[in-house]
Amino acid sequence: MLDYAALDALATVLREGSFERAAQALHVTPSAVSQRIRALEERVGCALVVRAQPCVATETGRRLSQHVDQVRLMEQQLQLAAPGLAAKAPARLPLAVAVNADSLATWAAAPLARFAASHPVLMDVAIDDQDHTEEWLRSGQVLAAVSSQPRAVAGCNSRPLGAMRYRAAASPDFISRYFSAGVGAGSLARAPSLVFNSKDELQARWARRLCHRHVELPRHRLPSSQAFVTAAVAGMGWGLHPEALIADELAAGMLVELVPDTPLDVPLFWQTARLAAGLLGALTGEVLEAAGAALRT
Amino acid sequence: MLDYAALDALATVLREGSFERAAQALHVTPSAVSQRIRALEERVGCALVVRAQPCVATETGRRLSQHVDQVRLMEQQLQLAAPGLAAKAPARLPLAVAVNADSLATWAAAPLARFAASHPVLMDVAIDDQDHTEEWLRSGQVLAAVSSQPRAVAGCNSRPLGAMRYRAAASPDFISRYFSAGVGAGSLARAPSLVFNSKDELQARWARRLCHRHVELPRHRLPSSQAFVTAAVAGMGWGLHPEALIADELAAGMLVELVPDTPLDVPLFWQTARLAAGLLGALTGEVLEAAGAALRT
Repeated sequence: MLDYAALDALATVLREGSFERAAQALHVTPSAVSQRIRALEERVGCALVVRAQPCVATETGRRLSQHVDQVRLMEQQLQLAAPGLAAKAPARLPLAVAVNADSLATWAAAPLARFAASHPVLMDVAIDDQDHTEEWLRSGQVLAAVSSQPRAVAGCNSRPLGAMRYRAAASPDFISRYFSAGVGAGSLARAPSLVFNSKDELQARWARRLCHRHVELPRHRLPSSQAFVTAAVAGMGWGLHPEALIADELAAGMLVELVPDTPLDVPLFWQTARLAAGLLGALTGEVLEAAGAALRT
Repeated sequence: MLDYAALDALATVLREGSFERAAQALHVTPSAVSQRIRALEERVGCALVVRAQPCVATETGRRLSQHVDQVRLMEQQLQLAAPGLAAKAPARLPLAVAVNADSLATWAAAPLARFAASHPVLMDVAIDDQDHTEEWLRSGQVLAAVSSQPRAVAGCNSRPLGAMRYRAAASPDFISRYFSAGVGAGSLARAPSLVFNSKDELQARWARRLCHRHVELPRHRLPSSQAFVTAAVAGMGWGLHPEALIADELAAGMLVELVPDTPLDVPLFWQTARLAAGLLGALTGEVLEAAGAALRT
């Protein structure tokens, strides 16, 4: 068998980002962490950690770290089935999930929190674009993800969550400044748009649907769902906002749809690693219930 | 002189992350982008871009890209002084700034948006921990940053913004579950805390001040200021929240301070590259005004 104390040290260094923080988490000295990892590297015959700030895994290091996370998960599912196995109160299990920012800013934070409040886990929530969260699942960095991809990643189950409805909106001043002659390819090429980051294709997708061709949009980047709304109200740009986040602003006339009643619906899916089906069952229940109440079917 | 069309292609690839998106932004074909960059690499004698997803700069690529951003900035300041120089309406200038998430979720989005709404820029806002934004400035990736570091980075000016006040809070249920016997090193080592990411030291700092020693905290990671509040209300963990974000929850008793009246004040500073003093003057005015109204002096 492999040396699981050393594997634990490796996984902790990669999770915490440094030997010092890993040592604190494991209640040992940094040199003990360093020795364990060096012994493991000698046995495996290659480097496992790139000593940088933060420390990152080599390809082999990443595989070993995923292996130990999976073993830990299987151990915990075993303990749920046979509580006598756990000599002491079960340690909290790290549980990594990837969620898109707009879901986290609207419906997804509450079910994750309710699950975490009643299960012995420590959640590690990663944020990425809904078109990219499946990569986190495929690489084994997370055990569950909210994704726009319906097809299940290998080794995972996929369940439909419903669609998040977006509205293309801007402030009235912005609209009279840039769109007084209507919304089309010409005006969209001049009016600054808001995008979350370079992966955010929603604005381009909405513009393409309207104009029946690609329009190169001037883009401000603002990676925060809430700041997106504040920025739109202040006239920084137009953008696609989750309807739920801007209901008050639309009702008060602080934001206006660029073209009346042209929503963009983004279907979302909950993908979970089959390996962790036992642990993730209760989380899936919470997530499906909250999505059912908030998303469109 | 260097080939500035090729340098522009390089900077665009690095900003957009791919040759395809850079080609769209520059209104040329991907192979034209590729040829320009290859010609530049042959002249310089080393690779400038690591062709990955997303494309990233080599060390030399980063320096060249910063150089072209600086030249563009100087050109724009020249055009502000001598408008006749601009043959057509001035193109919008990319302006990258780094802000901590809690500032963006509270006071900082509005001044950035007001500035962007009235100046020919495209803002590229990066989020990082306030203890780390100065690294973005030092590496030249941004021209301005909200930082917890008072000392000016080389080539920058630093101005105090006031302090952001945090409160350590949790739901009443969470407090009776974990802290019924008081808040101390023992209970803090068992009660799950909320941290934004592995760089977030606020919870550890508050615990150290209270207990007069380091306490290893169990940590959920949740990289969203708003989700932090939702998660705390749902009983997921305790954490340090910006006072401004949880005023309603505290007043309604949905969140309670762990130890009454033990705020943590984090002084913030606005650091700006001197090189861009002309362009950043108006932004600095907006930022100082908004911070003055929202932060503690």
